[in-house]
Amino acid sequence: MTDAISLAQPSPTAAVLIIGDEILSGRTADTNLNTIARFVCALGIDLKEARTVGDVPAQIIGALNKLRATHDYVFTTGGIGPTHDDITADCVAEAFGVPLLEHPEAVAILARRYGDDFNAARRRMTRVPQGGTLIANPVSDAPGFQIGNVFVMAGVPRIMTAMLEDVAPRLRTGAVVHSRTVRVIGVGEGTIADTLRAAANAERALSFGSYPFGAGSDGEIGTNLVVRGRDEARLDAAIAALTNALNEQGVLAVLQP
Amino acid sequence: MTDAISLAQPSPTAAVLIIGDEILSGRTADTNLNTIARFVCALGIDLKEARTVGDVPAQIIGALNKLRATHDYVFTTGGIGPTHDDITADCVAEAFGVPLLEHPEAVAILARRYGDDFNAARRRMTRVPQGGTLIANPVSDAPGFQIGNVFVMAGVPRIMTAMLEDVAPRLRTGAVVHSRTVRVIGVGEGTIADTLRAAANAERALSFGSYPFGAGSDGEIGTNLVVRGRDEARLDAAIAALTNALNEQGVLAVLQP
Repeated sequence: MTDAISLAQPSPTAAVLIIGDEILSGRTADTNLNTIARFVCALGIDLKEARTVGDVPAQIIGALNKLRATHDYVFTTGGIGPTHDDITADCVAEAFGVPLLEHPEAVAILARRYGDDFNAARRRMTRVPQGGTLIANPVSDAPGFQIGNVFVMAGVPRIMTAMLEDVAPRLRTGAVVHSRTVRVIGVGEGTIADTLRAAANAERALSFGSYPFGAGSDGEIGTNLVVRGRDEARLDAAIAALTNALNEQGVLAVLQP
Repeated sequence: MTDAISLAQPSPTAAVLIIGDEILSGRTADTNLNTIARFVCALGIDLKEARTVGDVPAQIIGALNKLRATHDYVFTTGGIGPTHDDITADCVAEAFGVPLLEHPEAVAILARRYGDDFNAARRRMTRVPQGGTLIANPVSDAPGFQIGNVFVMAGVPRIMTAMLEDVAPRLRTGAVVHSRTVRVIGVGEGTIADTLRAAANAERALSFGSYPFGAGSDGEIGTNLVVRGRDEARLDAAIAALTNALNEQGVLAVLQP
């Protein structure tokens, strides 16, 4: 029997945990958050929060336990290589209160890759918290892993992006959030704020954002109004109403393709 | 009288709070975290954590209160424009439990900028939590503000970066963390992991990280070993020892300029 509650099941939620001293020191500019944000958005999963922590066990364990208790999915990046500063697997095992064990499939994968060079450091990369399953790494073989609702991935962007391919089929998806952008040209946000607020108040199931641009090298100023929502018909109606209201106000507003 | 404790005062700590639905939806890739990380690093301030939250009051207030209680400084970005989704000032006032009031200096600045176009939406940008002081915005005038140990800045990267100029003189600085990079060429992390671990164990006052690169379009593989610390003499000694140990292992390791 299907009841009303299951029909109205809310969209899954997600959080991202970025792990690595190199992000906090400024040495490396993270790009994984944006990749994951676009990935989950396309699956109808709501990304609610992201945290960046250093290579500090108490920080990693604390943040992971908080995020996994409050979101349907947690995606971590970084700290799963062979060197001493790669402590993510240890911390995830501790967060879940399970032993960290060499995973037979991971051992087989890396023995095949490294042959005679399969040393102790590289064996570190086969360790998975008990109960975890591997996430395939088609770039450099050393796998990530999933345990419960947590997906542990590499920090190298090319590898992380490739791992998402193996993560995708494991996720419950939601209704996709659609987005439309109206570009307002020649006036600042302050000129259209009242019109935008009225549109937002008239349609509370949608979200309305304003992202100014301008005074760049071409001297053009303006703002991109972004309206987002799961119901495409309501979205299109709201966009038409907003564009009309702006035009009536004498403001040049163009729906972006 | 100067006592040992004040001489050994620890370096200040900092956290970053990135505010905005556009980051979590993937529409916008944040770059401000890296800018702030490099800014505080140059001042000898340790960035310990960053969080990204949406335009949700409970999230903003909760994260801000947590971060400001546990770090010397908190830097926020985003949500201080004139539109209805700009709710950062409201949330900061609520977090501090003080009223949000029009700041006379901010009113004067924006009245001068906008003249007859100084409407209600733009007046929103003059609101500062009671007790706050302005942060100058040399790009588009609308100020940020400081209250207590919290610095509230714009989300537009060009404006945020400019605001840091006015923030810098207000910060207590620490001993600067120096960094050296040794580039290991031709072998993967697994080959040098034991040597790196031994170097890290021999010098616990420094931090040792490994950041692999490779299999890019030029086919070169390797890893960048980054050693960081406040004592430059110890840092140089550790780098010399590490490079020697790698060379003795038959690995090509080059100190980067």
